[in-house]
Amino acid sequence: MSHDRNAEPGRSLTLGVDLGATNARVGLVSADGNVVRRAALPAEPGQGPEATVGQICQVAVGLMHETGVRAGEVRGVGVGTAGSVDIEQGILRYWPNVPTWRNVPLQRLFSERLDLPCTIENDGNAAALAEHWVGVGRGLSSLVMLTLGTGIGGGIVLDGRLWRGWTGAAGEVGHMSIAPDGPPCSCGGRGCLQAYAGARAVVGRMRAALAAGEPSVLSSSDEELTAELIHRAALAGDQAAERNIRLTGRCLGVGISNLMHLLNPQAVALSGGMTATGDLLMEPLREEVRRRTLEASRRGVRLAFSAVPADAGIIGAARRFVMDLQRQKSS
Amino acid sequence: MSHDRNAEPGRSLTLGVDLGATNARVGLVSADGNVVRRAALPAEPGQGPEATVGQICQVAVGLMHETGVRAGEVRGVGVGTAGSVDIEQGILRYWPNVPTWRNVPLQRLFSERLDLPCTIENDGNAAALAEHWVGVGRGLSSLVMLTLGTGIGGGIVLDGRLWRGWTGAAGEVGHMSIAPDGPPCSCGGRGCLQAYAGARAVVGRMRAALAAGEPSVLSSSDEELTAELIHRAALAGDQAAERNIRLTGRCLGVGISNLMHLLNPQAVALSGGMTATGDLLMEPLREEVRRRTLEASRRGVRLAFSAVPADAGIIGAARRFVMDLQRQKSS
Repeated sequence: MSHDRNAEPGRSLTLGVDLGATNARVGLVSADGNVVRRAALPAEPGQGPEATVGQICQVAVGLMHETGVRAGEVRGVGVGTAGSVDIEQGILRYWPNVPTWRNVPLQRLFSERLDLPCTIENDGNAAALAEHWVGVGRGLSSLVMLTLGTGIGGGIVLDGRLWRGWTGAAGEVGHMSIAPDGPPCSCGGRGCLQAYAGARAVVGRMRAALAAGEPSVLSSSDEELTAELIHRAALAGDQAAERNIRLTGRCLGVGISNLMHLLNPQAVALSGGMTATGDLLMEPLREEVRRRTLEASRRGVRLAFSAVPADAGIIGAARRFVMDLQRQKSS
Repeated sequence: MSHDRNAEPGRSLTLGVDLGATNARVGLVSADGNVVRRAALPAEPGQGPEATVGQICQVAVGLMHETGVRAGEVRGVGVGTAGSVDIEQGILRYWPNVPTWRNVPLQRLFSERLDLPCTIENDGNAAALAEHWVGVGRGLSSLVMLTLGTGIGGGIVLDGRLWRGWTGAAGEVGHMSIAPDGPPCSCGGRGCLQAYAGARAVVGRMRAALAAGEPSVLSSSDEELTAELIHRAALAGDQAAERNIRLTGRCLGVGISNLMHLLNPQAVALSGGMTATGDLLMEPLREEVRRRTLEASRRGVRLAFSAVPADAGIIGAARRFVMDLQRQKSS
């Protein structure tokens, strides 16, 4: 009998799936939000939805075997995914990073493969739910989540409930403009937070600095420039990379100050690759928030990196499933 | 018997008070949100809270007499006021425009004078409640309100309920920064929406334009320059004033685009003196929103000037009272 098996009896486990364009993660999540067992696999959405879902489900079944539970003993599966999600219909409408996936019935595909009930959720919303449940926002009334990646996404939890917006489009934190005439953004606007603090913006700024002759260890690197390389260089003391990360932190601080003025949430959490830079990012971010924000709007607000950085997608997707189950029971 | 008396039986009327630094407005509001009778008076908060409240209550009693109802027949009084309001304690904590008023027990003062139960509310929140109840947001699930005055305030209604934030500070729409290095704002930040589109900013920009020699009817005016004079000049075709109002509209458009990306509300409403400029303000505002906002975030959103511009403060304050009454009954 495995250690994991002792952790939770089968009936209180939920499968969580975090589907990204590059990687997928699967986990068995306990009723109190612990990931009992997890696995990751490369996602190859180019193969099409059926094949991708098939591979993920194979890994999920493997996880359940290892944990000693059968599919029938798990309550269900929650799937979190990037892109525009119709949660009522269980359909992934479109996925900017994988344009070939349109109107994919993700809920049905997972449900049929695993013979389990399924819910789907936007990944930013899932991260917000996770962070509110067991992370930075645990026990607090409200939280705004920022997910820092190629794009900047997010989710908003108010009074313990996800605020989706009228058409489900709320939480587009990355498209808040902080400079009307700033750099153009993929959304058609200018000066969006994403155009300053998204991974592509960080890389673009670094390229420009290197082209302008700023001294940096990255100027002699053979590897293709990525945000991760810049993070590592900054942490190793490279001045040009550090300036880049600090500017990113200041831009995020402007956006978070705006969030605080508008929503006055009890917590703000950040996740994503960039948070690996730690204080290099957080110090200028906090300084900008302090300098710009009315005391009444920022007093006592918990502002922190994700407490469950690797697992937020899994946990939040599972949480969405359980919340739906509870709602059905109570109605 | 007066016409007003026929409109509503006494027991379903609520007094609404809209207390500003310059004017106060009082009205009797029916159960369906109509103002049965109203009055305005100059507010002179410099006299102190007791005298100011006394004068307002005298007018309120006069209104009730004229309408043929006695104090005992009115359900209660809702007061909306600028400044930082502690709604639980019924206290106006501080009022930036009237710094001598600190920790004023406004709820008790009105309640004792009128012998009626009383609630108090922030004026931006009251305006949002009114607009959601009987105005632009009538029948809709969510609305963000922007009140355009010396400052820019606002209120947020989500799922039919006011979102106050964790410490009651939500809805500070005017302190959303749209340009990190923009003009300084009273809050300590820079480039706040208020520093571009508040009445003082509009006047400051006009002064600078006149000083730079831009031709305008306002350059030969003897009157002190006010936002209202600029509005009138713009409506009369003065090019410099018109440019000013159009720029104001564009700045508001940037801010409203941000609101839509974050909250995806079903409606956005604007009130305040500046809305008198009509399409001069609204056209560039809409254009900026269209240009900058993801289609999913703006599709079908009702964006309009207040439907109850003069009465929103009264109606929203009364609404707050009735909502509290209903909550007490149901708990």
